[in-house]
Amino acid sequence: MEDRFVYADNAATTPLDRKVLDKMMPFLTTQYGNASTLYTLGQSSQAAAAEARQNVAEVIGARPEEIYFTGSGTEADNMALHGVLKGRQAAGRRHLITTTFEHPAILNTAKALEKEGFRVTYISVDERGLVRLDELERAITDDTVLVSVMAANNEIGSIQPLSRIGELCRKHGVFFHTDAVQAFAHIPINVEELNIDLLSLSAHKLCGPKGVGALYVRRGVNVAPHITGGGQERGLRSGTENVAGIVGLGEAARLRGSQMEQEMAHVGALSKRLIEGVMNAIPKTVLTGARIGYRLPGTCSFAFEGIEGESLVLRLDNRGICASTGSACSTGSLDPSHVLMAVGLSHEIAHGSLRLTLGVQNTEEDVDYILSILPGVVQDLREMSPVWHG
Amino acid sequence: MEDRFVYADNAATTPLDRKVLDKMMPFLTTQYGNASTLYTLGQSSQAAAAEARQNVAEVIGARPEEIYFTGSGTEADNMALHGVLKGRQAAGRRHLITTTFEHPAILNTAKALEKEGFRVTYISVDERGLVRLDELERAITDDTVLVSVMAANNEIGSIQPLSRIGELCRKHGVFFHTDAVQAFAHIPINVEELNIDLLSLSAHKLCGPKGVGALYVRRGVNVAPHITGGGQERGLRSGTENVAGIVGLGEAARLRGSQMEQEMAHVGALSKRLIEGVMNAIPKTVLTGARIGYRLPGTCSFAFEGIEGESLVLRLDNRGICASTGSACSTGSLDPSHVLMAVGLSHEIAHGSLRLTLGVQNTEEDVDYILSILPGVVQDLREMSPVWHG
Repeated sequence: MEDRFVYADNAATTPLDRKVLDKMMPFLTTQYGNASTLYTLGQSSQAAAAEARQNVAEVIGARPEEIYFTGSGTEADNMALHGVLKGRQAAGRRHLITTTFEHPAILNTAKALEKEGFRVTYISVDERGLVRLDELERAITDDTVLVSVMAANNEIGSIQPLSRIGELCRKHGVFFHTDAVQAFAHIPINVEELNIDLLSLSAHKLCGPKGVGALYVRRGVNVAPHITGGGQERGLRSGTENVAGIVGLGEAARLRGSQMEQEMAHVGALSKRLIEGVMNAIPKTVLTGARIGYRLPGTCSFAFEGIEGESLVLRLDNRGICASTGSACSTGSLDPSHVLMAVGLSHEIAHGSLRLTLGVQNTEEDVDYILSILPGVVQDLREMSPVWHG
Repeated sequence: MEDRFVYADNAATTPLDRKVLDKMMPFLTTQYGNASTLYTLGQSSQAAAAEARQNVAEVIGARPEEIYFTGSGTEADNMALHGVLKGRQAAGRRHLITTTFEHPAILNTAKALEKEGFRVTYISVDERGLVRLDELERAITDDTVLVSVMAANNEIGSIQPLSRIGELCRKHGVFFHTDAVQAFAHIPINVEELNIDLLSLSAHKLCGPKGVGALYVRRGVNVAPHITGGGQERGLRSGTENVAGIVGLGEAARLRGSQMEQEMAHVGALSKRLIEGVMNAIPKTVLTGARIGYRLPGTCSFAFEGIEGESLVLRLDNRGICASTGSACSTGSLDPSHVLMAVGLSHEIAHGSLRLTLGVQNTEEDVDYILSILPGVVQDLREMSPVWHG
């Protein structure tokens, strides 16, 4: 097979959709008005942001006024955790519940809150990467304000039982936040049906631009601002509105939202082809996370015995394939992924992890190219490996 | 004179420079890699961000590793204040000194810190909008960690005596932060010469994109992160890098920085023409802030007796002129500008404020058009005004 370029790291970021860029272009050229100004040029920016807010809200069954734009999904996570715990409704309660396998945007923010005197309980997950609901329920006390559980994991793609978590939270009168950065507009999520009170999302995971995200906050939930200043986003997130970015997020949400069913089918079929191909061709391989149907359509995550994920990624790059070991956010760290540890893999196996994440732009040819390259590369590395006893 | 469109609100935001957009375009199309990844596509994003960091650093005589990219100037201000007061070097000291006429990004963040138990002293400014240095020095105690004084005011353009403030801070062993969002790349600022320890800036004030800013932090100054997560920006500001935005900021900084002298002369001459024209043509007018030479080259700020600034802005918009009453960030508020109050204007006068801020794209024809329209509009409004006794 001829060499080609295959981008298979869509969980790290996605290519900007051409239609999204087209929609952004006026706001990068002639429509440069500050959205907080009184004159016509500024009002045009404001109207564009309002349309984007509507588009984002529709994807999750929210109202536009419940959407607050931020500079990233990470910022939305920070805003949710700090905001609820320091908001008026916390009323002195200081307990947060989350899980051991959240994204660092949640885990490190929880740690920062612990330093400020808040109490955090970290719930474990089972070997499929699903939160233990009985443990979660037992952890809720009178002091608990917020439960934060990610919608779908960024490394292994496991989708959480959001409906049951939402019910539990409602029953016990605590707020439910979900980090949906990987899941938003990729799988159906309705904040009303699932009793979700806060939800974080990011544009660049859905073929939108980098540098813009949003937090959904249910009407009536009091959140303290994390970034203070001129009072933009109705006082909850200050800073001049990134109009082009917001418009891009809105258009990406509209596109992904309106085509979700077809895109899930397309990406899901590619993933099935890839997972089956890899599992058949490469011995001593673990499919990490939940089985097909309980994971994000595009997430194919493996661990290969006896090799190092980083070497694998570099070898694949040489052959035109973009992949990652775990999340892009922990690249450079020598520790094995905390997610793979949380689902009970050994250090040895976890070191050989590879994440291939497919997106709407990928094709069967892309998958077949990966399948023509990956088995040979794994075999080469195993032959060189001091710890491989195949 | 024929009707034309004149954008004269460059302190609110600026048109994106075409050269900046050209430099950004690859990162909005083919170069979409996450900068934290190992493969070639991601490394190209990382290299572009490194070049931008160098460009920003050069404008203020800093080292690239002292520049941390953020989502806005406001975020940089939040990061500076929270970061220093909560950083290790604060060592239990809990006192912040700032001024009464800072941007809301500083004032409202100072108020948020007060709620968290920090102590804040607000120094007054004189009628030119310059901080009272004797009052500042007297306010410094053993408990003081940080002094934050804006480099140039966003409403009236007064440039602070940064050198003397820097000396004072150095002498007393406290850190010096300056909000340079309006001043960066518009007037020369050298962090070494001026003893500045932290400096906030924003791309969209210098014909760069909205949604990206930066904080300069002197090497060795310990700052706690305000947004926690995957550890981007060397642990100080988490969130996937907004590569296109960062590249845009870098290019805008390079362009403005390398052409600063000519641009200051161009914009300064336009402002002189506008200020003299307005003061000659319209009676009972105050030039608010410092006199020419002690204010930002592009900032022309007036107060007209007997009228309302908002009505004026809307009338000017009808004639194609974009202007503002005070800052874009306080639009919608009925209170007179806190800045104009701080420099000692009466409520009555302050209500008639108008800010015209010129930029590199403006021309003499723009100024002459404003001068052909503004006096008539002011006269019309005065004739309708119940409080005008001309």
